[in-house]
Amino acid sequence: MSTPSVVVFDVNETLSDVTALGARFADVGAPESLAALWFASVLRDGFALTAVRSAARFADIGAEQLRTLLPRAGVTGDLDGAVEHVLSGFSSLPLHPDVGPAVRALHDQGLRLVTLSNGAASVAESLLGSAGLRDLFEHVLSVEDAGAWKPAPAAYAFAGQRCGVAAEEMVLVAVHPWDVDGAARAGLRTAWVNRDGGHYPAYASAPTYTVTSLEDLAGSLSG
Amino acid sequence: MSTPSVVVFDVNETLSDVTALGARFADVGAPESLAALWFASVLRDGFALTAVRSAARFADIGAEQLRTLLPRAGVTGDLDGAVEHVLSGFSSLPLHPDVGPAVRALHDQGLRLVTLSNGAASVAESLLGSAGLRDLFEHVLSVEDAGAWKPAPAAYAFAGQRCGVAAEEMVLVAVHPWDVDGAARAGLRTAWVNRDGGHYPAYASAPTYTVTSLEDLAGSLSG
Repeated sequence: MSTPSVVVFDVNETLSDVTALGARFADVGAPESLAALWFASVLRDGFALTAVRSAARFADIGAEQLRTLLPRAGVTGDLDGAVEHVLSGFSSLPLHPDVGPAVRALHDQGLRLVTLSNGAASVAESLLGSAGLRDLFEHVLSVEDAGAWKPAPAAYAFAGQRCGVAAEEMVLVAVHPWDVDGAARAGLRTAWVNRDGGHYPAYASAPTYTVTSLEDLAGSLSG
Repeated sequence: MSTPSVVVFDVNETLSDVTALGARFADVGAPESLAALWFASVLRDGFALTAVRSAARFADIGAEQLRTLLPRAGVTGDLDGAVEHVLSGFSSLPLHPDVGPAVRALHDQGLRLVTLSNGAASVAESLLGSAGLRDLFEHVLSVEDAGAWKPAPAAYAFAGQRCGVAAEEMVLVAVHPWDVDGAARAGLRTAWVNRDGGHYPAYASAPTYTVTSLEDLAGSLSG
């Protein structure tokens, strides 16, 4: 099996550290742990729309889920302000510490690098720009331009079209089993990033590669 | 607009009180609040499979998500036992207090009553049986026999086939906006049960009826 030429990175949680959003929830009077429930709820409702061949913007679902969850968690007062405070934190998250070294190594290896997010391209642009890594990426892609969220096949096909390569020339890199599963079904090779010794569910397609850090990816893809 | 003749109840959270599952999480050393994250994560991954035209059993996804979430929450020791303890709690949840009176009133009104769950039919059979309500339901249906989870159109069509009625003869009753949205797209009328003064998201199809208690449903459907 030849090595792929294009590395397609998921963004939220794969590159960015979403746990840092907990502080924004605490700022508005909610438990920090609500960040994880919020993120899962946004994906749940986004995938429900994907299942009926529809779509909404990640930020719009994110705002509506905050309007659902924050009052239930006891947040009172300026709800509009609280929603804005949490959402604005989402585009200023830190990157995981393994991202910079890994991206530089993969780029030096001659691989083409792109991102493909269910969120807005502007969020990924901001995350990568702040870290001085934007120039190493050929494209910063959002499913907003694909008409369908990952894990629908059309989302991965869109990345192939933008890069001018077939599915098997791409490797999708993600921490989320649902993303690995969707990419595998669409014909891509896949790398599951398991930073925390997590469990990979039996109902999802097995990844081509499993790494415990993005820094191990360069070795996996070199031959 | 004529009144529908078949009332299709969602089960989890609409009839059963899933917050009661928090005690099972506490029993195994996890925070009670993990129940909500677990349930959202199960639906998230179930819908991801639905979006790629696949499916897994609710209980299988539920077990795998417990294997993911419990260790992350610091649960150590007998993981198999902990998974079993939480999952067995899921089939012995209490019903919300408005369910019994509402179901009797709707049945007395001459409406045909069925359930349609993304979970197993056996769970709904157990919940309704324990409450002495099983005989009031004509069918206890699971998407396991439909080949697709809600909110895919095939799941609602399956209920119509089993009941021998067209989509517009059914009203889907649920607390979840994604279920209301899917049913509305499939041509059913819909009732959103908003017990806790919640927010209905703009990206989901608006419900035909909104009630704050299942007991208000009989009045909504009588005219």
